[in-house]
Amino acid sequence: MSKFWSETVKRTEPYVPGEQLDIPNLLKLNTNENPYPPSPNVVDAIKTELERKLHLYPSPSADQLRESIGAYYNLEASNVFIGNGSDEVLAFSFMAFFESGQKIRFPAVTYSFYPVYAKLFNVPYEEIPLNRDFSIPSEAFFQSEGGVIFPNPNAPTSLYMELETIKDILDNNPDQVVIVDEAYIDFAPGSAVSLINTYDNLLVVQTMSKSRSLAGLRVGFALGNPNLIQALTRIKDSFNSYTIDRLAIAGAESAIRDIEHFKDTTHKIIKTREWITTEMKKRGFYVLPSSTNFIFISHYNYRAEILYTELKNQNILVRHFNKAGIENYLRITIGTDESMHSLLQTLDSIMLKNK
Amino acid sequence: MSKFWSETVKRTEPYVPGEQLDIPNLLKLNTNENPYPPSPNVVDAIKTELERKLHLYPSPSADQLRESIGAYYNLEASNVFIGNGSDEVLAFSFMAFFESGQKIRFPAVTYSFYPVYAKLFNVPYEEIPLNRDFSIPSEAFFQSEGGVIFPNPNAPTSLYMELETIKDILDNNPDQVVIVDEAYIDFAPGSAVSLINTYDNLLVVQTMSKSRSLAGLRVGFALGNPNLIQALTRIKDSFNSYTIDRLAIAGAESAIRDIEHFKDTTHKIIKTREWITTEMKKRGFYVLPSSTNFIFISHYNYRAEILYTELKNQNILVRHFNKAGIENYLRITIGTDESMHSLLQTLDSIMLKNK
Repeated sequence: MSKFWSETVKRTEPYVPGEQLDIPNLLKLNTNENPYPPSPNVVDAIKTELERKLHLYPSPSADQLRESIGAYYNLEASNVFIGNGSDEVLAFSFMAFFESGQKIRFPAVTYSFYPVYAKLFNVPYEEIPLNRDFSIPSEAFFQSEGGVIFPNPNAPTSLYMELETIKDILDNNPDQVVIVDEAYIDFAPGSAVSLINTYDNLLVVQTMSKSRSLAGLRVGFALGNPNLIQALTRIKDSFNSYTIDRLAIAGAESAIRDIEHFKDTTHKIIKTREWITTEMKKRGFYVLPSSTNFIFISHYNYRAEILYTELKNQNILVRHFNKAGIENYLRITIGTDESMHSLLQTLDSIMLKNK
Repeated sequence: MSKFWSETVKRTEPYVPGEQLDIPNLLKLNTNENPYPPSPNVVDAIKTELERKLHLYPSPSADQLRESIGAYYNLEASNVFIGNGSDEVLAFSFMAFFESGQKIRFPAVTYSFYPVYAKLFNVPYEEIPLNRDFSIPSEAFFQSEGGVIFPNPNAPTSLYMELETIKDILDNNPDQVVIVDEAYIDFAPGSAVSLINTYDNLLVVQTMSKSRSLAGLRVGFALGNPNLIQALTRIKDSFNSYTIDRLAIAGAESAIRDIEHFKDTTHKIIKTREWITTEMKKRGFYVLPSSTNFIFISHYNYRAEILYTELKNQNILVRHFNKAGIENYLRITIGTDESMHSLLQTLDSIMLKNK
């Protein structure tokens, strides 16, 4: 703390990202990255761009990328906002749609960045407790004062909310923005993007970090009514004109166009998820039905924190949240079949030792 | 405007970046980009990184890059904060060091993003008129209520302020942060970085977009007392954990290490600047003594706006600001000798025609 710090700095409680340890042979299953590399076209497109004009500013509005993302979803460029990862898009959304005097609502167990944004921008909030099965009680989000934000599927629970339920939340917040954070949607039944032309209060946020294997490139986007996109653009153009560099624009453009690679890797991850779910159940784990690229699991006989520590000792990193209600759960990213085999093997030996 | 827009969106007056026209054969002298490509090592480093781990998140703190930048200035990593271009660093700085109740000060003619940030973050401000020779009246910045920000050299005037004068401003704002925005400092006599160990209220902001030829890569940084760096880090970690992608980290790291390429291209630009200054004076232009990679010029007989338009008609883009006091000036980026020859030739024909 210092006399130079603003009131804003003083009230922040920064987000703590998953550990990014730089250890050789580490099996990293803690930050929900894709185990497969991005489309080879991405690498080619970046190499081409690299030889061109690195000394010139990128396009401030990334129009071509917005058109490509729009086209993928049968939307216009005016429905698309691009940001430096979905985290930046979410930060801008808090500024654009939430007020410092009006309480917003999000689930009590959810992406832990939401309360961090709320503190940074001085937005009051209510944390809505989940149902006992970890599902989101939709009615508790009706008639919110300042707006609503939740992930679908939710993290770290991995549970998907049906679009009919999302419609109910939208119908019951006609004057507030409802942000559906779809970081994991490509591993789930269906996106709320299909509702955008019906609901002018819906903002869908997605990322290229998960299903497009581009966590290292920092590209996220929001989809919604042009009126909402315009608000985000005003905030961005008052903050930083050029948020996406030339290489990221070229890479993201190429990734969104390679539908085959995307489908192939997504299907592989879903297949591995179904298999590892069965394997975990065989071992007595309770596994929530996942619609994401991770599983959220708990065991009656083994404390999650001990499993987390013992796995880490053996160079396998998973995520454990020290938070009431989920303190006996582990969130484990779906890797390749090979890495999931290693995980099972190590887990078996740990469970045997701690029996 | 819409019922969904927050008060924040409503009060924004977004920055308008220099035109980024995508016209073949355009001579682009309007956004102060470097005419030379970055160090070949940058391209190599990015290619290597490209083959590695694009599917994994980058380092959230970019420690290695911070160390390299620190080392370049004989500082520690704890003195360095990295951002997505210096614009993002400036946005975070407004949040970290300025208060909504306390007036900050900046020059009346300066980087036009400052009032944009101030409106976005609801920070009141005083615009201090320049002296008649366009220099900054340092005493008008003493005992500021909420802090001070100015570029050195100033833009678009291109004028450099001596470090002794900056010391006076720092001495007379002991409880406020003084931000010196050094986007163009590598074309000037000397950086205020040398004052960091003496002044705990000094934040120096720099960019890789100009002297390091990396406008397309989006890397800027702040240098200061660890206490100030910590405040910026708290803001960033409450906003977006990973702001710099893997390729940008690798490229920037390589750029800061290639001192020879940096010196070579910087010297070339300064040499061209001195020559073009002489040429412009020969043609009757008033040219401010530039310490940047651009010149700020005016002609008694030719209106700047007309010259701007006629140059644009002939595919040469320079910058004209429609602002009282500087409306008869043009800001022209220093390009290669070849492109400056084209500029002179075209300008000569325009001046002949409009005689």
